[in-house]
Amino acid sequence: MAELLKGAPVAGAITRRNIQAVEELEGKGIKPTLAIIRLGERPDDLAYEKSALKRAEKTGVQVKQFVFPADMTEKNLVREIKKINEDDSIHGVLMFRPLPEHIDEKAVCETLAPEKDMDGITSGSMAGVFMDTEIGYPPCTAEAVMELLDYYGIELKGSKVTVFGRSLVIGKPVAMMLMRRHATITVCHSRTAIDDFRDAGRRADVVVSALGRGKMVGAEILGSGQTIIDVGINVDEDGNLCGDVNFEEAEPEAAAITPVPGGVGNVTTAVLMKHVIEAARTSSH
Amino acid sequence: MAELLKGAPVAGAITRRNIQAVEELEGKGIKPTLAIIRLGERPDDLAYEKSALKRAEKTGVQVKQFVFPADMTEKNLVREIKKINEDDSIHGVLMFRPLPEHIDEKAVCETLAPEKDMDGITSGSMAGVFMDTEIGYPPCTAEAVMELLDYYGIELKGSKVTVFGRSLVIGKPVAMMLMRRHATITVCHSRTAIDDFRDAGRRADVVVSALGRGKMVGAEILGSGQTIIDVGINVDEDGNLCGDVNFEEAEPEAAAITPVPGGVGNVTTAVLMKHVIEAARTSSH
Repeated sequence: MAELLKGAPVAGAITRRNIQAVEELEGKGIKPTLAIIRLGERPDDLAYEKSALKRAEKTGVQVKQFVFPADMTEKNLVREIKKINEDDSIHGVLMFRPLPEHIDEKAVCETLAPEKDMDGITSGSMAGVFMDTEIGYPPCTAEAVMELLDYYGIELKGSKVTVFGRSLVIGKPVAMMLMRRHATITVCHSRTAIDDFRDAGRRADVVVSALGRGKMVGAEILGSGQTIIDVGINVDEDGNLCGDVNFEEAEPEAAAITPVPGGVGNVTTAVLMKHVIEAARTSSH
Repeated sequence: MAELLKGAPVAGAITRRNIQAVEELEGKGIKPTLAIIRLGERPDDLAYEKSALKRAEKTGVQVKQFVFPADMTEKNLVREIKKINEDDSIHGVLMFRPLPEHIDEKAVCETLAPEKDMDGITSGSMAGVFMDTEIGYPPCTAEAVMELLDYYGIELKGSKVTVFGRSLVIGKPVAMMLMRRHATITVCHSRTAIDDFRDAGRRADVVVSALGRGKMVGAEILGSGQTIIDVGINVDEDGNLCGDVNFEEAEPEAAAITPVPGGVGNVTTAVLMKHVIEAARTSSH
């Protein structure tokens, strides 16, 4: 039986640290404040927003919601972001993506000040992740993976980690963060030959899957005694949430595995609050 | 006998394209111009400068040399860089590093405008490499590796490439550039266990070594039929230049291998001129 790497206790531990940090900041008259920008009413955005609001309340982080119609012009969105950049009472921003199609998402993201970019959407944050410097913040999900690995004491130094997926939201940043922690990394993706995929999966000490393809990672791609971090959130043929990993096949052979739901996904809002608190602390210097 | 992947013909092909591009720009009244900033008289810098000047002359790229004493203050250096940023007659900058120890190199690099950063020293350029966007330019040596692989028709899509080294100058950017070209990448470094190093080296289709450790990569770390790109420039016990790869051991088993000297190192100044020309073209829009 594999150890079940649940997200809730990780989020709980981060939140306890966050609450203490909020109290310290409030003692200095600083109220860590997050702006949430949402265009339209996409169910995914609403669900995440709800969970972020709940986490913010638990943490003591203030939230200002900026809800705009889905047909808002790019010009107006940029104007709002610039206003937020200049608003000293707002320390960080979460903007739901993808933005509606009529908007140039890349251009809009770049207008956000990197120091207020809580989720790695600016090139400043990406440079920070790549160069290991203090610019911006990594994407919350990528950092949630690292928090989870640390909480459960998974050794990274000198370990072999295989990352499935090369997205800018998870695959690439998590590979950089793992390398910084002295892991030897292999990154597989949609163009990796199936045999190589299998080899890379089997020989890894730790597998991080962020493919977004339901139950694709099964017994033939995995070895035994591994730590398996499943970042995928997919919907299976019965309409239920499932990860990238075929849990039934993977669990018996794994040393440790995250459930989906209930794994990495539960940690992201706690990381988001951590970023807001760090931004509030930095802005006060 | 392995195919010898010499740098000179690669540099020659790039230079031919560069010469044509310079002629086209001159037809529009634009003279592509590179600024070289050097502090002090380090022999490595002088040698590279000489080779860059020669390549510039061959290509038709103008060079303005900014030579300062090694004890120049950081403040003065920053002032000079800001002047260059604003000088429309200069399209690109090469600044020799490491800078003298009394200077905060990171801070100084960030003052350079990314669009004039010809060698990937700004966070803007690094974000461009990581995100695959058009900000700045990758480090010349990393791009020289890609040019060499392309010139000799080495297939990258779906291939397994192992990169030895995780520096910001070569290892990390070349890994990103290879991944963009659909290679499956593994990155090994000083903290990789020796067995894992060996496994990763042996199973690769292409090995790119940028460790900076003379002749460290020998037969026991390599497989057969591989393409071996040696980016290391080291000095052996007899005072001769040598690569990371033990050429005598590697060559008989390899399908193709770069010599050192005479390999990747010969391509970098041609890439530098290509960047200057691109910067000149962009600035004219």
